[in-house]
Amino acid sequence: MGKIQKGRNMASYSEMSKEELLKEKQSLEEAYHQYEMRDLSLNMARGKPSAAQLDLSNELLTALKPEDEMISREALDIRNYGGLEGLQEAKELLASMIDEDPDNMIVYGNSSLNIMYDTVSRSMTHGVLGNTPWCKLPEVKFLCPVPGYDRHFAVTEHFGITMINIPMTDEGPDMDLVEKYVSEDEAVKGIWCVPKYSNPQGVVYSDEVVRRMANLSPKAKDFRVYWDNAYCVHDLYEEIPLLSIMKEAKKAGKEDMIYEFVSTSKVSFSGAGIGGICTSSANKKDILKSLTIQTIGFDKVNQMRHVKFFKDGDGVRAHMKKHAALLRPKFEMVLNRLEEDLAGKDCGSWITPKGGYFITFEAKEGCATRIIQLAKEAGVTMTGAGAPFPYHKDPKDSVIRIAPSLPTEEELSAAAEIFTTCVRLATVEKLLEV
Amino acid sequence: MGKIQKGRNMASYSEMSKEELLKEKQSLEEAYHQYEMRDLSLNMARGKPSAAQLDLSNELLTALKPEDEMISREALDIRNYGGLEGLQEAKELLASMIDEDPDNMIVYGNSSLNIMYDTVSRSMTHGVLGNTPWCKLPEVKFLCPVPGYDRHFAVTEHFGITMINIPMTDEGPDMDLVEKYVSEDEAVKGIWCVPKYSNPQGVVYSDEVVRRMANLSPKAKDFRVYWDNAYCVHDLYEEIPLLSIMKEAKKAGKEDMIYEFVSTSKVSFSGAGIGGICTSSANKKDILKSLTIQTIGFDKVNQMRHVKFFKDGDGVRAHMKKHAALLRPKFEMVLNRLEEDLAGKDCGSWITPKGGYFITFEAKEGCATRIIQLAKEAGVTMTGAGAPFPYHKDPKDSVIRIAPSLPTEEELSAAAEIFTTCVRLATVEKLLEV
Repeated sequence: MGKIQKGRNMASYSEMSKEELLKEKQSLEEAYHQYEMRDLSLNMARGKPSAAQLDLSNELLTALKPEDEMISREALDIRNYGGLEGLQEAKELLASMIDEDPDNMIVYGNSSLNIMYDTVSRSMTHGVLGNTPWCKLPEVKFLCPVPGYDRHFAVTEHFGITMINIPMTDEGPDMDLVEKYVSEDEAVKGIWCVPKYSNPQGVVYSDEVVRRMANLSPKAKDFRVYWDNAYCVHDLYEEIPLLSIMKEAKKAGKEDMIYEFVSTSKVSFSGAGIGGICTSSANKKDILKSLTIQTIGFDKVNQMRHVKFFKDGDGVRAHMKKHAALLRPKFEMVLNRLEEDLAGKDCGSWITPKGGYFITFEAKEGCATRIIQLAKEAGVTMTGAGAPFPYHKDPKDSVIRIAPSLPTEEELSAAAEIFTTCVRLATVEKLLEV
Repeated sequence: MGKIQKGRNMASYSEMSKEELLKEKQSLEEAYHQYEMRDLSLNMARGKPSAAQLDLSNELLTALKPEDEMISREALDIRNYGGLEGLQEAKELLASMIDEDPDNMIVYGNSSLNIMYDTVSRSMTHGVLGNTPWCKLPEVKFLCPVPGYDRHFAVTEHFGITMINIPMTDEGPDMDLVEKYVSEDEAVKGIWCVPKYSNPQGVVYSDEVVRRMANLSPKAKDFRVYWDNAYCVHDLYEEIPLLSIMKEAKKAGKEDMIYEFVSTSKVSFSGAGIGGICTSSANKKDILKSLTIQTIGFDKVNQMRHVKFFKDGDGVRAHMKKHAALLRPKFEMVLNRLEEDLAGKDCGSWITPKGGYFITFEAKEGCATRIIQLAKEAGVTMTGAGAPFPYHKDPKDSVIRIAPSLPTEEELSAAAEIFTTCVRLATVEKLLEV
């Protein structure tokens, strides 16, 4: 098989002559056709844990046994109806993951995305804390730090909410812009945030960004920060702290402005964990007013199962070290491959995350769609181009989200090699277009 | 303790003289004050299974073990994300409970009430099968067979939907009236039905009613029958069949008109079961379009747990016989007490159900509120007066829902005795008012 030259030994593409580029293109195409012929089916698209990661929680299945006590600390039979806010024990467990007060929690079922969806849906039909239901307003807008989480943007798009891109910096969203929009436009009702190991860049919001977020002075009384703390305990190396947004907001008397979301989806089982919301007493009361119509209660048996299995925040953190041990080599393999094949070539850049589920690759402008198409045709599924942007529109067509968790190391090695080849090929093609 | 005279030995209250009534009142009040002094706290309010019933399913907790296969028949890792429609195995289980086609199912999480809420909520914000979202219409109406399930009415009230009472007969809702409203008024978008052992009367819809329901010709294209088959396998004695609404609707080419709901809430654990919707392919597709934005999937581990525990419809039916054995004596105790204390007294009537969770007592007009108040003050909580009616308005103030499942037999015996005393006292008071 014709091996292509490694990145470190090569000159930058932008400095190559047309002839050199044509030669490089030919060599890359040869390599690429070899991959095509292997008829692979690899997937680096979704942030799903691997089977080995899921195995870490298998004891959860029998954490609660037929002979165990079925009565919660507050004297609820966990098998029966009731307990709309969730078990106190479960509130404490989830609160400990995000360093917040259990009294601010409501514990739901298995999907924090569903909680966010419900929160937006309820705001549409019933409004927030007595304010006009959004469906009665001419326009509702959300700020969307980009690149961001495609499923967040899908929720707001589904409800016809106008989305405004806010550029990310390496400390979080551009807060000057956030403050401007929030303080000037009453139609701006929310902002989507993944504050720790942001999806997809892995940015941890700085203390200053958290403080500025907690101290916003919105024009709209019903503006809320949707703080999706999805990767709160998902460190690949040492624990990186994130300032508590609720505590900062309380200091400013602005706790009504915060909806914080948390789940065990990438802690225990992705599809069978527990999730919750953390918010002010007033918001909680407002939410429960609808929730008591919506359901008689969420699955308290699964809540108790999680409490028995993890015990407390320390139990969760110890468990996450096992996840990190499985994920670290995968992240490092992809990063090493990027470094090895692409460093110094001027065909894109990437961020080295310290946790979370993704590596963000930023291709040369106009190359992302082509790279993803090439990868797909060679049997490697990536997250679709544009996915990390509202309306799937990446203004520069450059951001690619790499999810290294699901494939085995062997699959990942093959997928990463194909990916860098596609990056190089697409870049050379682009340079030759001019 | 001053024992009051038993019903069978007494004349009808309506035939008593004022003096006799005053004497009876005094005797009843003495008995009542004895109860008050016992400082009881009994509850016949909610249709919750007892601890003994929940114990029947304790093996469900460990039905799925760490060493078991975690891959579903369709090659999904049940612990991971995905499987939006639910496991095929779980679709088959729920479909077998209601004698419907698994291909028509979507399996959700633990609460069928939540599925109904979501269905109404989605119709409000996004409309049904391409029709105008209900929130954009000047008025939306639902038909509400009465007496009915308070939580159904709470959902429609929550969304500002106008509710129209439809009287129940002993074969189901008054279909002449249903047909008239549905065919003439485009604002009528739904009807709430509990077709087997209706809540609270325990009426099983006759074949003719099911057929007429499946053959409605609605003025509104987006009219739907909300068929809450909550008590599909909840027979107290022999199995009473209910005609399959989906099959009847298919015959008429009207399957898009049906949303059927089913759950294991009163089969396994009330708070930790699985629920689903059964509907046409077109509706399913429409629902999934929103559902894929709402969540990545429901708890497939709990779905598989139920499949392992019950195996199939026969397993469910065998399990329900154990529930019946626990429930039957409680129903019979209350019914015997009503017969014993109230027969021939002209102070109300009741229906003897063959399944479900409730006994409906119909007091003399204008007496229900007083009876429930008297019971409460003597330590017996009943479902609130008016609860089985839209807007909590019982036009005759006469319907009382009795839920005998939760108390122990001892508690139930005391509660039933107090209840009949309150019925008699309130009736005598009423007669003396005139």
